[in-house]
Amino acid sequence: MRQAQPKMRPFQSERENFRSGADTPRKFLERCLEDFARLEPEIGAFTFVDIDGARRSADESSARWSKGRPFSAIDGMPAGIKDIIDTDDMPTEQGSVLYNGNRPLFGAASSTALRLAGAVILGKTVTTEFASMEPRGTRNPWDLNRTPGGSSSGSAAAVSGGMISGAMGTQVVGSIIRPAGFCGVYGYKPSLGGINRGGSLDMLSQSCSGILAASLADSWVMAREIVARVGGDPGYVGIIGPMDPPAAVRPKRLALLQTAGWPILDPSAREALDTVLASLAQAGIEIVTRSDWAELEEVEQASTEMLALTTKINAWEWRWPLNAFMERDASAISQSARDRFTIGLAMTQEDYAAAIARRAEIRKIYARLAAGCDGLVSVTAPGAAPLGLTSTGNPIFVVPGSMLGVPVVTLPLLQSEGLPLGLQLIGFEGEDATLFAIAAELENILS
Amino acid sequence: MRQAQPKMRPFQSERENFRSGADTPRKFLERCLEDFARLEPEIGAFTFVDIDGARRSADESSARWSKGRPFSAIDGMPAGIKDIIDTDDMPTEQGSVLYNGNRPLFGAASSTALRLAGAVILGKTVTTEFASMEPRGTRNPWDLNRTPGGSSSGSAAAVSGGMISGAMGTQVVGSIIRPAGFCGVYGYKPSLGGINRGGSLDMLSQSCSGILAASLADSWVMAREIVARVGGDPGYVGIIGPMDPPAAVRPKRLALLQTAGWPILDPSAREALDTVLASLAQAGIEIVTRSDWAELEEVEQASTEMLALTTKINAWEWRWPLNAFMERDASAISQSARDRFTIGLAMTQEDYAAAIARRAEIRKIYARLAAGCDGLVSVTAPGAAPLGLTSTGNPIFVVPGSMLGVPVVTLPLLQSEGLPLGLQLIGFEGEDATLFAIAAELENILS
Repeated sequence: MRQAQPKMRPFQSERENFRSGADTPRKFLERCLEDFARLEPEIGAFTFVDIDGARRSADESSARWSKGRPFSAIDGMPAGIKDIIDTDDMPTEQGSVLYNGNRPLFGAASSTALRLAGAVILGKTVTTEFASMEPRGTRNPWDLNRTPGGSSSGSAAAVSGGMISGAMGTQVVGSIIRPAGFCGVYGYKPSLGGINRGGSLDMLSQSCSGILAASLADSWVMAREIVARVGGDPGYVGIIGPMDPPAAVRPKRLALLQTAGWPILDPSAREALDTVLASLAQAGIEIVTRSDWAELEEVEQASTEMLALTTKINAWEWRWPLNAFMERDASAISQSARDRFTIGLAMTQEDYAAAIARRAEIRKIYARLAAGCDGLVSVTAPGAAPLGLTSTGNPIFVVPGSMLGVPVVTLPLLQSEGLPLGLQLIGFEGEDATLFAIAAELENILS
Repeated sequence: MRQAQPKMRPFQSERENFRSGADTPRKFLERCLEDFARLEPEIGAFTFVDIDGARRSADESSARWSKGRPFSAIDGMPAGIKDIIDTDDMPTEQGSVLYNGNRPLFGAASSTALRLAGAVILGKTVTTEFASMEPRGTRNPWDLNRTPGGSSSGSAAAVSGGMISGAMGTQVVGSIIRPAGFCGVYGYKPSLGGINRGGSLDMLSQSCSGILAASLADSWVMAREIVARVGGDPGYVGIIGPMDPPAAVRPKRLALLQTAGWPILDPSAREALDTVLASLAQAGIEIVTRSDWAELEEVEQASTEMLALTTKINAWEWRWPLNAFMERDASAISQSARDRFTIGLAMTQEDYAAAIARRAEIRKIYARLAAGCDGLVSVTAPGAAPLGLTSTGNPIFVVPGSMLGVPVVTLPLLQSEGLPLGLQLIGFEGEDATLFAIAAELENILS
């Protein structure tokens, strides 16, 4: 296990120094590049980097800050883009040899927005194959023998290692929140449709683009600056709220969401969570559990079917492009993706119709909780990142937020076996800013 | 004006001959290719053709039919794919020099499905720039001095000229139904999400992939075979119903939808429509109008705002990728697209939120009509295709079906100035098969 703990590089807290000239985006980038040079050979967070290009961008940003004219609050922010999202100046390889050397003609909505906002794109971060299950070798900066989680593996590891301040991720089951938890970084999966996914391969019905970052403020501001430029998914308003991070607001009542994963929760994780809940209670926040509240119990019951339902929905929605991939070269496709294809092929339209109808019902059951609590808390996984690089970890605690289409934030405030684990906060659809206000308050209380 | 009228080549009616061996897909293709050789130089329906490839596909299909083992009901069908939809064996140029020579790595959902179903893809059909307003020179087979309509210009013209039996189109305002009407072919815009749009540039919130074809049966079967392989858009069940064309069912009551275009309806079009309505009434179908029915009057009132609302929604949703296109080379973008970009840039998220909320309200107002009629009838344009190639025609009659997200079929049963005009049938969301059953009956009555 690594002894020296990795250290993140929050960006928003430096803005005053950029304004005053005490620091510059170029100097900030150079500090990131020191960590990059030291850690990347071991970690493998990136599929492609453009250090010269990043330095040029950082210099241009430094010039803008020195004139007091930054493009945005993330002007100069060192960032990475998950390799499932198109870029026009770097390859986009989707975690698959089928896309080796693929050079999209235009950047995705989020990539384009980040450039227009002045972000300094260091490179493309490793994704599992097609943002699904098959890992691609990235290691956890907290312990090189462990997975960083997936599918946003490289984004989590690079932010964790201080190589960048923020990164794009995508999530359909737990691909932002789980790796963020395992790597001790902040993760934000918006409400469904919150960030325009145009130009990302990940167009499944419960999938979202989102953020992994070095601070809560960075997570919000990065997302908000993207949405201000390219909106949410077509047909969705997109994340709404202030451009600055929402100010902390103390919640009255939070619900503990145990999920179907509760019986396998590691004792050390359970202990860490109990300590957190006790601190919150001491701060005057009421914590309710399934035994206290019938509506919550209904959601807990429903949580037992969420993983199977999500698997079914995703398998149908992956019929294409998996059929095109299989036709091209089945041997280039992982066994897990081939298994998913087999499941999808065996389904009928009626099976799929029933699955999405059930999902809609469960969303309604969940939405009723808004009348009785300000948000829900949980862990991001049953324990620390698993040893080995063959699995990205158990998604049982993170699938609810995805399936429900609601905003989720994870804070690096728990530990298990001395390694990071995320405190997951789950909110209500469209109420992303409220969730951030609560998260900020919890961080104040618990840090 | 052309004297010899173009003649379509329906495919489904030939299936028995393929089975018996009296005809083969290769022979069928050769008949199409005769018309292609004669008409294409004047019409310009295709951006790319692969005649050798089509002949190979047709031979393979002929072999399958001769063994009694076709892949599907459209095995051997000569087809075109609108050049806004990705193909892996032909360029996809989006009607823009920015995409000159663009070769997508994988085919779109619909392209992949058509190949898996055994369709014979002759080539890519001309689209206006980015499936929007700027025409790309295709001429109307019925009169070379007139537009075929747009944005599915080449698909409509190629089917009209008998060069193919069916083609993929896309519609966000009127891009399938309007050109189908102007070119005297059948057009089908499904319910929202009806056909998987994966791999198409046209991902706007009220956009749909759909079909232009040489018969009503071809329209249904082509759509249905695609959906059986790749489903609808993620999150939508997709078109449901029998694999064979729905049998004709006589409606009890149809509503005339005048739309905001009624005052500018050409007298000859009006006369043709009146004749049709009289024939339907004579067949025992009750025809109701806005003066008969308060709920219909509400929809007619709402129709006056649909074009402006749609323009606003589309402008916001086009911020990306238009920002990426403008950054690359603003001079490569048409004035109409630049105007759209300007409108989008001036909008706020709140403006967009209000626009889609209003659209949702209007959809509810419309949905109430299902309780009082079996469907609605209208024309596809104020008259025949306009002279000249600078405009694709007025969308005032076709925007309702798009904005409402409901299924629309057009039948080539009207004329204006001796040129084709479509009889537009508008149904209710998810009830695509019902609409086809009514359309079949109307065709029986009126042909």
